[in-house]
Amino acid sequence: MGWLDEISWNADGLIPVIAQDATDGRVLMMAWMSRGTLETTQSTGEAVYWSRSRQRPWHKGESSGNVQRVRDIVLDCDGDTLVLLVEQVGGVACHTGRRSCFYRTLADSGWQVTDTVQRDPAEMYGGTTHE
Amino acid sequence: MGWLDEISWNADGLIPVIAQDATDGRVLMMAWMSRGTLETTQSTGEAVYWSRSRQRPWHKGESSGNVQRVRDIVLDCDGDTLVLLVEQVGGVACHTGRRSCFYRTLADSGWQVTDTVQRDPAEMYGGTTHE
Repeated sequence: MGWLDEISWNADGLIPVIAQDATDGRVLMMAWMSRGTLETTQSTGEAVYWSRSRQRPWHKGESSGNVQRVRDIVLDCDGDTLVLLVEQVGGVACHTGRRSCFYRTLADSGWQVTDTVQRDPAEMYGGTTHE
Repeated sequence: MGWLDEISWNADGLIPVIAQDATDGRVLMMAWMSRGTLETTQSTGEAVYWSRSRQRPWHKGESSGNVQRVRDIVLDCDGDTLVLLVEQVGGVACHTGRRSCFYRTLADSGWQVTDTVQRDPAEMYGGTTHE
């Protein structure tokens, strides 16, 4: 897989991946992929990240159902960051039940929550720990 | 500065920052900020990153003139990644003279260049090394 060899993996063998909604460009989340999970993402068409905390592949949406269907995989000039253009199934990427993980905007008074919860996390995960 | 204390800095004291065009949502680049450069970014309203290769602050556009005027600073759920909504002066974020650093899209044949060069890098940097 020559295209995987053109990536500059970091010291842990990972690359940061920015998931962006293909429909309107909203940045949904940032996570990491290993060589193996990127290959799986490409071949299956659904985003599979590498969970650094659990040290194992993490099929996004495996517990919530909110999988990400991949439209495009885009590499940057240095070859060390990816943008993943996705269709976010269920419209919710964040484990808090919000559309995007980026929901706190800096104001004079500090970080202010600027996005609403779309879906109850307890219902999303049915009592399991969040993905 | 309490808002800076709410950020989960990595082991190197840095946070990844996704610069996104405020006008149409195009992801322009990903870079890193230290506590000091984030504070400067917030107080001056222009993006100042931390150059990991040169180990010093990097005022984006310092040699090319293509500064980024900051509209919003948005933190994610884990507090370990930022989105910077910016107005990209000159319309070019990448040192290759392209609008975005993300210009190689994965196709069956491998990475394909999908963005055109807007500005000659030699003219942008006047013979100096790129920023």
